[in-house]
Amino acid sequence: MTQSTRTQVVIVGAGPAGLFLAHLLHRRGIESVILDIRTREEIEQTIRAGVLEQWTADLMRDLGLGERLDREAHIHSGISLQYGRERHHLDLEELTGGKRVTVYPQHEVLRDLIAGHLGQGGQIHFGVQEVDLTHVTGDRPRVSFRRTPDGPLETLEGDFVAGCDGSQGDSRQHIAGRTDLQKRYPFGWLGILVSAPPSHHELIYARHERGFALLSTRSDTVQRMYIQCGVAEDIAAYPDERIWDELHRRLATDGWQLTEGHIFQKGIVGLRSAVSDRMQSGRLFIAGDAAHIVPPTGAKGLNLAVADAVYLYRGLEQHYAGGGQARLDAYTDTCLRRVWRAERFSWYMTTLLHVNPEENAFEQRIHMADLEYVTSSRAAATALAENYVGLPLEG
Amino acid sequence: MTQSTRTQVVIVGAGPAGLFLAHLLHRRGIESVILDIRTREEIEQTIRAGVLEQWTADLMRDLGLGERLDREAHIHSGISLQYGRERHHLDLEELTGGKRVTVYPQHEVLRDLIAGHLGQGGQIHFGVQEVDLTHVTGDRPRVSFRRTPDGPLETLEGDFVAGCDGSQGDSRQHIAGRTDLQKRYPFGWLGILVSAPPSHHELIYARHERGFALLSTRSDTVQRMYIQCGVAEDIAAYPDERIWDELHRRLATDGWQLTEGHIFQKGIVGLRSAVSDRMQSGRLFIAGDAAHIVPPTGAKGLNLAVADAVYLYRGLEQHYAGGGQARLDAYTDTCLRRVWRAERFSWYMTTLLHVNPEENAFEQRIHMADLEYVTSSRAAATALAENYVGLPLEG
Repeated sequence: MTQSTRTQVVIVGAGPAGLFLAHLLHRRGIESVILDIRTREEIEQTIRAGVLEQWTADLMRDLGLGERLDREAHIHSGISLQYGRERHHLDLEELTGGKRVTVYPQHEVLRDLIAGHLGQGGQIHFGVQEVDLTHVTGDRPRVSFRRTPDGPLETLEGDFVAGCDGSQGDSRQHIAGRTDLQKRYPFGWLGILVSAPPSHHELIYARHERGFALLSTRSDTVQRMYIQCGVAEDIAAYPDERIWDELHRRLATDGWQLTEGHIFQKGIVGLRSAVSDRMQSGRLFIAGDAAHIVPPTGAKGLNLAVADAVYLYRGLEQHYAGGGQARLDAYTDTCLRRVWRAERFSWYMTTLLHVNPEENAFEQRIHMADLEYVTSSRAAATALAENYVGLPLEG
Repeated sequence: MTQSTRTQVVIVGAGPAGLFLAHLLHRRGIESVILDIRTREEIEQTIRAGVLEQWTADLMRDLGLGERLDREAHIHSGISLQYGRERHHLDLEELTGGKRVTVYPQHEVLRDLIAGHLGQGGQIHFGVQEVDLTHVTGDRPRVSFRRTPDGPLETLEGDFVAGCDGSQGDSRQHIAGRTDLQKRYPFGWLGILVSAPPSHHELIYARHERGFALLSTRSDTVQRMYIQCGVAEDIAAYPDERIWDELHRRLATDGWQLTEGHIFQKGIVGLRSAVSDRMQSGRLFIAGDAAHIVPPTGAKGLNLAVADAVYLYRGLEQHYAGGGQARLDAYTDTCLRRVWRAERFSWYMTTLLHVNPEENAFEQRIHMADLEYVTSSRAAATALAENYVGLPLEG
């Protein structure tokens, strides 16, 4: 015997897209239930980077979720681009007429969203099992699952299903006629978490002949740093001394010193760009990583997921307000305009800053010329800055 | 018995770099002699495209060579970028604070420069033979040649030699320790000259799924058009009807008609980028195509050659005014800063607008996203415009 429950919007996945969507819907009195196969602890403790575009941080505040953000997050009004041992400051705030970015790790965002949603009586089922999305595109979409291995099979029926379960999730497989466009880059990132005070007050993106390096920050006591590595390298090939050596070389400038510390986490990820050309099928809509992947260089992944959530919310809000289906029908097109802008920027930043072993010496030099140009032309610097802080949402 | 003559600067090559250099030197009373293996007719009748940056046109006027330019050239205050059957106007003049480009074919520029220089008593030896540059880098550089097959071997000795004899010329071979960085693109341009009135008042750069197309103009009665083709294709594979068919498809927009006409010249060229990392060796300096090649997409070749001539002139002027060698010593570095900017822009325009068969569907779509971005962001449009009209000369 299956237990059956009804809600308005079934949300699969308690990541940024799913949680922002739930908050936006709740504010308009639209009910949702979120399912996630991960436990709350897994979600809240999987450490991820996070650079919030200006509007993303503003949306958190607008949703009443800005308190810890405003207390703990680091507001950055600029970034540095480094090449040829020279560091060039890009004043994002000045170039964009006052916009800044907020460095606040994704798992901290999720903690705030989860606590906020549960505190408002929102329903999130963590750690569910046997999630089955086989009936998600029809007129009465439903998702079945068990809360525990021995629990009953439950069915959650909704008017719509939002697939926010990431690139490995099942939702994307139910989008009919979908084609993915994608590119795998011939390099990866080796990321470390370090117990140390910040070495610099802003992010430094460095192109060096040995490869890319990124100096980022998480808090006053924990720092995040990355170096470009081979795509199939083993982390065992990188003892701590080798990582520090690469960071020192790639981030070196005269009169500046990188502060070392205890490395308490390290790992390698490949870099990939991917876009699904369809983000909806019947009453199923996919959002965030379920629909598209960006390499981390442009810091766009989280923000794109939230933008999808906003566009999906607007479509659902129009529907429930009796305004018709126009926005829901246009969901894919509306999202993809922004997605492709962000994909372009992420691809641009990635090709600009990494040493691609498949490129010849001329092409490598072209990227140096691009860095020289972007750090000397106000127009080019503004173009980079307006993308980094986030292009405006449509409508 | 060799006849020997002395001058101050021996200029090898009567192209844009050599002729502008001769004019600039003459104005300061510095004597030069130009040698070219081509006849005056060959030089003046080899039809080449020509988009003059604002400062290049201004320099012609400044040198007293602006009369015919101002009468016959077309001043363009914008260009159009086309994709997805939509044409997007880029107002260069408004975006760059008043700068425009001048469409005036290179061979017309050369006719004016040659007539002007000869009229001022300048010496140009056309159609010379057995040009020998074996003694060009030493303390007393000299070039030997014959004016006619049966004429005496003459030696021209100078304080300096300017190698302005193009990418196939001999000068570049005498630059010690030179390395070329280069890239060959996996496509070419099929260009035609057509007897017809202009179809549009400005240049149209189109990206189409079938490949790039460029609508340009030469005069009120002759038009220049290009289509992307394979790099090793035979012009015989392109009867006129096929060319028109491709142009119609690639340039099509609603409510606009391409005007056909008699095709009186057609040819295919490959696209290449190349930069020599050294542009001087002893008393030999190379300029223009002898030192670097750009694909034609950015319309930068002629302008870069003139910029080299200006920088070389400044070095020679400093030397002859007793100011020392600093500018001559810095010649390569000064030139290469501008060269790499122009190479970057030409590479960017080329990758933006051509369908590269070596790129996958994601990468192709990225270029469309770039076109969508550049035609919707003022900052991005300004960056394109400021390069197209020409970045300012240094110093």
